[in-house]
Amino acid sequence: MHEIFLDELKKLNTRFMELGVLVNDLIDKGTRSFVDHDKKIAQEMIAEDKEVAKEAIKIEKKALSLMALQQPVATDFRVVISILKATTDLERIGENANSIAVETVRVKGNPRIADVETIISQMTHQVRTMLIQVLTAYVQEDEQTARAMVSGHQEVYADYKKARKLIIDGVEKDPNAAVASASYFVIIRLLERISDHIVNIASWVIYKTSGELFELMESGKK
Amino acid sequence: MHEIFLDELKKLNTRFMELGVLVNDLIDKGTRSFVDHDKKIAQEMIAEDKEVAKEAIKIEKKALSLMALQQPVATDFRVVISILKATTDLERIGENANSIAVETVRVKGNPRIADVETIISQMTHQVRTMLIQVLTAYVQEDEQTARAMVSGHQEVYADYKKARKLIIDGVEKDPNAAVASASYFVIIRLLERISDHIVNIASWVIYKTSGELFELMESGKK
Repeated sequence: MHEIFLDELKKLNTRFMELGVLVNDLIDKGTRSFVDHDKKIAQEMIAEDKEVAKEAIKIEKKALSLMALQQPVATDFRVVISILKATTDLERIGENANSIAVETVRVKGNPRIADVETIISQMTHQVRTMLIQVLTAYVQEDEQTARAMVSGHQEVYADYKKARKLIIDGVEKDPNAAVASASYFVIIRLLERISDHIVNIASWVIYKTSGELFELMESGKK
Repeated sequence: MHEIFLDELKKLNTRFMELGVLVNDLIDKGTRSFVDHDKKIAQEMIAEDKEVAKEAIKIEKKALSLMALQQPVATDFRVVISILKATTDLERIGENANSIAVETVRVKGNPRIADVETIISQMTHQVRTMLIQVLTAYVQEDEQTARAMVSGHQEVYADYKKARKLIIDGVEKDPNAAVASASYFVIIRLLERISDHIVNIASWVIYKTSGELFELMESGKK
């Protein structure tokens, strides 16, 4: 019986990882569609986003049924709970990536601010690196890497503040950039939110590994 | 044994509701501090936000220990799971309210756009009404009200789009409003996110009541 359970758990872990990798691609696609003004990628993504939501629900259902039918204890219990909770964060990251793509469709041919787009690309690179790190830490039950996500987030937040200032300066110089600025403000916030969800996933890595449950980040510092 | 469990569950439900009411106050305080330029409330809030995070962790810990020690089944299982998941949404709503207060501190004495502040107040009223409705639906296991949250969210989203346009027009007319516009974009997004979390809570009300697990809202439509 326990072997079947462990086998199911292994499959669930694989699906969780696959969802993570899919979502990581979406972050790249979302920003790329925006920076390259590529509406085609943006529209593709809006379709793929539904796939993420569907798969997340399937994983959650599977986790809930394992929990209800097998009543796992100790480590097994924690593994199922961590998937149940961290899947929501992955799904949200997917939604955020999708919202970046939505801005591509919105901004059309309006004047843009080059510096801001550079920092957006940087932030995208940073959150994608963090996501792969946290997924790897999840598999390897690597608490140390999980804890390091906080300083990763602080870098993203520093870039967020820098970007905000660049946008304000850009619009003050050229009020025609106001339409693009709306999208910029949304996108830098979305990237910062993605980073925040990665820290949440890190919290669940620590819970899974050690049984400790706490917030890695005091939200006042976000 | 089961009576003790039910008693614990009742207490947990009460704490969940209390957290909901606290968070609802924070939404009001956050927007009020911003619209009235009241830095004192804003600073108070940033302290209270930590309380929300602490209480959410306590509720989650309690739910996890009930789950692990009592291994509830059927309805009891669903009640514990719904608290475990919906508490995260309440906590996030609290964080979002706090982020609104942070904008109060940021915007300082810069020129503002009156129409935008009116619509922000409207949106705040709407999400607070929705939050009370969903909390009540949670207690009463009222699936119909829970489902109605989707149309509530659609109204909030319509206001979000309207506000976005008003901000862009305002900055185009007066580039000195660029600093305030950064805060406006953040705040309307936060209010829309709060509404989104309320729809998530509604999904957990439905799960708790009927055992059905699905996304109330297709994220492509958000």
